[in-house]
Amino acid sequence: MTSLALIEAAAARLEGHTRRTPLLEAPLLNRLAGRRVLVKAECLQVTGSFKARGGWSAVSSLPAGARGVLAMSSGNHAQGVAWAAAAHGLAAVIVMPSDAPAVKIANTRAYGAEVVTYDRLCDDRDALAAGLAADRGLVLIPPFDHAQVIAGQGTTGLEIAEQAAEAGVTRAAVLVPCGGGGLAAGIALALEARAPGLRLQTVEPVGFDDMARSLASGQPQRNATAGGSVCDAILTPTPGKLTLPVLQRLAGPGLTVTDAQALQAVALAFTHLRLVAEPGGAVALAAALATPDLPDAVICVVSGGNVDPSLFAQTLAA
Amino acid sequence: MTSLALIEAAAARLEGHTRRTPLLEAPLLNRLAGRRVLVKAECLQVTGSFKARGGWSAVSSLPAGARGVLAMSSGNHAQGVAWAAAAHGLAAVIVMPSDAPAVKIANTRAYGAEVVTYDRLCDDRDALAAGLAADRGLVLIPPFDHAQVIAGQGTTGLEIAEQAAEAGVTRAAVLVPCGGGGLAAGIALALEARAPGLRLQTVEPVGFDDMARSLASGQPQRNATAGGSVCDAILTPTPGKLTLPVLQRLAGPGLTVTDAQALQAVALAFTHLRLVAEPGGAVALAAALATPDLPDAVICVVSGGNVDPSLFAQTLAA
Repeated sequence: MTSLALIEAAAARLEGHTRRTPLLEAPLLNRLAGRRVLVKAECLQVTGSFKARGGWSAVSSLPAGARGVLAMSSGNHAQGVAWAAAAHGLAAVIVMPSDAPAVKIANTRAYGAEVVTYDRLCDDRDALAAGLAADRGLVLIPPFDHAQVIAGQGTTGLEIAEQAAEAGVTRAAVLVPCGGGGLAAGIALALEARAPGLRLQTVEPVGFDDMARSLASGQPQRNATAGGSVCDAILTPTPGKLTLPVLQRLAGPGLTVTDAQALQAVALAFTHLRLVAEPGGAVALAAALATPDLPDAVICVVSGGNVDPSLFAQTLAA
Repeated sequence: MTSLALIEAAAARLEGHTRRTPLLEAPLLNRLAGRRVLVKAECLQVTGSFKARGGWSAVSSLPAGARGVLAMSSGNHAQGVAWAAAAHGLAAVIVMPSDAPAVKIANTRAYGAEVVTYDRLCDDRDALAAGLAADRGLVLIPPFDHAQVIAGQGTTGLEIAEQAAEAGVTRAAVLVPCGGGGLAAGIALALEARAPGLRLQTVEPVGFDDMARSLASGQPQRNATAGGSVCDAILTPTPGKLTLPVLQRLAGPGLTVTDAQALQAVALAFTHLRLVAEPGGAVALAAALATPDLPDAVICVVSGGNVDPSLFAQTLAA
């Protein structure tokens, strides 16, 4: 299981490879929100999302002699694993839904991975991946339910703890976009040890709030549908077996935002922070602006910025 | 005159107010350029451009008893001065061309300044500003030809020197967008002292290359026209009296890029760096990709990200 020691060890392996992303703040955004809003800009991470952390953490902890890796991902984990595998001289096969954003598929290939696509609604992704892994002797790097992946994502939390202290923030809500919960669980574990006044809450799209409902009920819940939100990065069907217990212990109530609110947050990140955020990566910023009962300081993770230009242009024009 | 000591003193005054912006690098952008391209992301600076540095430096060094400040600017200096003045409790009047990007005018007002507009082609901006300053007892903060403004912009160079060393870069071209030359002169002075292996070159839009021609001829040159490029931030008619001698001593030949190349760089910063750059702020990145004879490592300053959403959306759609 992921511990602070595992997160610290991952941070040491990531040193010089991933980036200490900035914690940004904008006066006009604070005014709009009526509170301090500090943005941990993981869209500036290598490969454009926090997934480079977990990818590097997992690949760098493989046993010697590994022949290659396999991952299933709608695009950000894909790029993180593809990039980390290439840097370690390992082959990478990435199983991606055929409706993933074109920019994510193209970049995953550009990092040197072989991309195998499947139909999100019809095909059995897990069986496809298991067959490829067995045939080729590849090690599966799961997107979130894996101790070293969670440890890698948790390095974001070590940085938030330091950067919040530098910004004079000791009590705050930390809002984190949530698919399977790997980023949220990793950050929660880091904050528990390093910044106990910072309390994490997950943020999901309305209709894909399996984590919020699981936290509320105490039992793992599933989403009714697999697709249909613009927040493609975080449409995971159900919480992880490793991530849910961590978040049950450490997180506050889960929050939700609509697709329209996520897109509005993409536009606000453009105007006030000069950041390119993807819709799924902007849900925490959306929640910081839309949720009434939040403390005077809110830290939002903008978790990724891999968005097709045409969607981004439409968002700005709206 | 601006010296290293004046830049270091400005850095001390800026501490806790402006941001140490990141030096970003992207594997796929390096591959495209055929060299290492490191991007100093001043579009992530407070107010969305490096002008917050010079604004704060100048306002924080005013004598006690100053009643307020006045600035002339197409928008980035406007916001930098307006923000710094408000934080110091001073009134600010900003004289802006009526065709400045709407986002820049709106943000300048949002920081609390009074905006007075003029017609870029017909009105005498300097006479208008002088009259306002005299009538209201305001201190003029020039956009570039001022020792404390140059010192503030030079703090960018102190950071580049540190961050390049951290990235293992000791020899590189440092490409800097250039209007009047305040940012370039400040950076050049800082690099002379702190990173002598880094050599600065200015970048301007084709047709607005007064600095490149002045450096080549040894005499101050003027642009033939006042407007007509999408790079609104850097259409200054002629180099500064303080900046030109610094750059004659320290800079290499000036570079130029077309508007189309600047817009292409805006799109590449979107895709590979997840940064919002304005066209004038992206000219150095454009030159890093378009100029054949550059060293293996190039550091580009992306100097601002205040761009109207409609123009940005058009750029992505092109």
